[in-house]
Amino acid sequence: MKAHIITIGDEILIGQIVDTNSAYISTALNDIGISVYQISSVQDDKDHILESFAFAKATSDIIIVTGGLGPTKDDVTKSTFCEFFDDELVFNQEVLDHVTHLFKKYVKKPLLESNKTQALVPSKATILTNRFGTAPGMWMEQDGKIFISMPGVPHEMKGLMEYEVLPRLKEQFNLPYILHKTLLTYGMGESAIAQRIETFENELPSAIKLAYLPSFGRVRLRLSTIGIIKEEVDAIMQVQLQKLEILVEDIFIGYEDEGAFESLIGQLLIAQGKTLSIAESCTGGSLVQRFTSNPGASGYLVGSTVTYATRSKIEVLGVDEALIEKHSVVSAEVAEAMAVQVKKMYNTDYAIATTGNAGPSKGDSDAAVGTVYIGIATPEGSIAHHFMMGNHRERVIGKAVNKALELLHEEILKN
Amino acid sequence: MKAHIITIGDEILIGQIVDTNSAYISTALNDIGISVYQISSVQDDKDHILESFAFAKATSDIIIVTGGLGPTKDDVTKSTFCEFFDDELVFNQEVLDHVTHLFKKYVKKPLLESNKTQALVPSKATILTNRFGTAPGMWMEQDGKIFISMPGVPHEMKGLMEYEVLPRLKEQFNLPYILHKTLLTYGMGESAIAQRIETFENELPSAIKLAYLPSFGRVRLRLSTIGIIKEEVDAIMQVQLQKLEILVEDIFIGYEDEGAFESLIGQLLIAQGKTLSIAESCTGGSLVQRFTSNPGASGYLVGSTVTYATRSKIEVLGVDEALIEKHSVVSAEVAEAMAVQVKKMYNTDYAIATTGNAGPSKGDSDAAVGTVYIGIATPEGSIAHHFMMGNHRERVIGKAVNKALELLHEEILKN
Repeated sequence: MKAHIITIGDEILIGQIVDTNSAYISTALNDIGISVYQISSVQDDKDHILESFAFAKATSDIIIVTGGLGPTKDDVTKSTFCEFFDDELVFNQEVLDHVTHLFKKYVKKPLLESNKTQALVPSKATILTNRFGTAPGMWMEQDGKIFISMPGVPHEMKGLMEYEVLPRLKEQFNLPYILHKTLLTYGMGESAIAQRIETFENELPSAIKLAYLPSFGRVRLRLSTIGIIKEEVDAIMQVQLQKLEILVEDIFIGYEDEGAFESLIGQLLIAQGKTLSIAESCTGGSLVQRFTSNPGASGYLVGSTVTYATRSKIEVLGVDEALIEKHSVVSAEVAEAMAVQVKKMYNTDYAIATTGNAGPSKGDSDAAVGTVYIGIATPEGSIAHHFMMGNHRERVIGKAVNKALELLHEEILKN
Repeated sequence: MKAHIITIGDEILIGQIVDTNSAYISTALNDIGISVYQISSVQDDKDHILESFAFAKATSDIIIVTGGLGPTKDDVTKSTFCEFFDDELVFNQEVLDHVTHLFKKYVKKPLLESNKTQALVPSKATILTNRFGTAPGMWMEQDGKIFISMPGVPHEMKGLMEYEVLPRLKEQFNLPYILHKTLLTYGMGESAIAQRIETFENELPSAIKLAYLPSFGRVRLRLSTIGIIKEEVDAIMQVQLQKLEILVEDIFIGYEDEGAFESLIGQLLIAQGKTLSIAESCTGGSLVQRFTSNPGASGYLVGSTVTYATRSKIEVLGVDEALIEKHSVVSAEVAEAMAVQVKKMYNTDYAIATTGNAGPSKGDSDAAVGTVYIGIATPEGSIAHHFMMGNHRERVIGKAVNKALELLHEEILKN
């Protein structure tokens, strides 16, 4: 069973927004055994949408369409559906009742004319209730192919997927079992890993596919397979995972589906009953945000401080002014002192600190763009490390965050 | 001149990564006058890639392909190019020299066999030097259509676009001028805005297209047009922008190309010679990260504190323990006290504070999931506001950050 995701909207094609919906939909479909054949982003243009519908119908079984359902004039999806299905828009009382209810409850204003048009839907469509918005989802079939239309607003689309689309697909089809397992590694490049696991890769059963995913100084190794009986698929995968784990033991962090690296660190800290605090300069809050974006961070993260200005490093963190004058604010000594001070300030077991220059221009110090110092304080002591992270601001921050997580992880494992 | 972007990689189709490259490429192409007709994400599969090449060639002039160029076995792009162009891979000394140089300089290890294969390129291809990686870019032509292949690693792709692809396209074609202008608004829904500007929209010249982009409680209004003479296009657009600005004056923030909202706030603060500090609880660093992700934040942002645990609100920020006991940690009183305290701690003119419950479960208080209090301290005094932000963690945090920026913006404008 193959799906084709079509996202409609000029905002994607001019680069104004990044399409994050497709990744969510792809993951959700894989989870119930449906492979995604292609994702296409097309213009708010009837002919182009019709062309993409025809292409998708010819090559896939399920066509998932997002976007183009809003109350405003730039949205053309519904009329295009009517043309493709030789259908017409009819008034649907159920949809109007739902829209009226939402307005009464949340907007607390009378219904606008443009919102009433949302109750016009193709006559052949099965309506999918949108719990989180006014534009209904739609389900239409033609020649054994299923077309599903959802609004592009992410949380509305997610609600429709969860409560309407996925349950219906699971009921209608007898779907296989797709399994992806991704090992997180660090400290070794893609080519070097490939060379090391060459024999393993050559001997992999043909049903299992291996992929390498490098990102910000790390490589993820993904094994993918598909089958009918879950237990058999799991067992076949398990054999290969055990082999691979041994081969990459020294650079292995964990599995991606066990959570992000910061979640794995959090679980370790909770298991040890330890706490963490953070002092950030060049990473500017990106490090703490990585921890707090996962639920459960309050179980180990006491707090963090972004001391962006030099004077706040002195006045708030209590770093010795003489130390900064002697070594400069971007130095190993200051990174280490920041870690020690923030650990004291929040009274935690571990602390991480960053200071550096992410660019594009030089800041409060003469340090070259890309210079990063990471300080770590542990129950046993403290240390700082020096790195050169290149000259792209976003990449310097991304790599510094990843490196800080790795160093913290190593320290926690020592204890 | 139309382009089709093809991204190759199973990792996109299984939802493991979000395709951010296409947004970057689309923006860059629009900037030099090339429209993007479609973006397609396809599997690491030769037949599928060939099919997408044929489709793209039939409907577009420039086909930009990313991904599938790494040194490992899951990458199939080069052999597919050979098949499509009836070509063969030949050894290229220039590429090998470049790869060898990169290894010597950065990896400091001998070249691996798999990296040597990167010097094998289709004989008909013009090589585009990849300054930031080992996989070369390639430029091939067929029947007047241009195919460009780049690696999928974002900073490598960006370097190739900037130094190789865009200059060559500008030189080869006489391109038109594409102009997008996006007004940022807040405080009014999409439908209500559409109703208010209906006459304006109906009277828009046919060359100008209007789009509504709602996101996290805000609506962006985009006007797009294309023409040959830059001055004429700018003038036609300016007339409409002035009309629209007046119509939405009370909800208008600024223009998107002047920078993100937080940059606009930063510019205001710098112009006034004022400083900012932040205390975050439920937003967990997302607010400060919004400011520091833009260069120049050090001109007004002194520092910030994420006080995730209740005890750090007391011990680090100095919020009165009795106040927390009386009103609970998620309350207007505590939000206001956090703002006042962090302002004092970093000695700034303005301060923002957030406390709430982003979910999924209840935290250190009994507050319902979605409850958010935002405190603001200014040179004149302090205040706190209460919001219910729904029950999706990511959305609660996103809306709270946007709302905090709006409230701060309003306070700054008062002074």
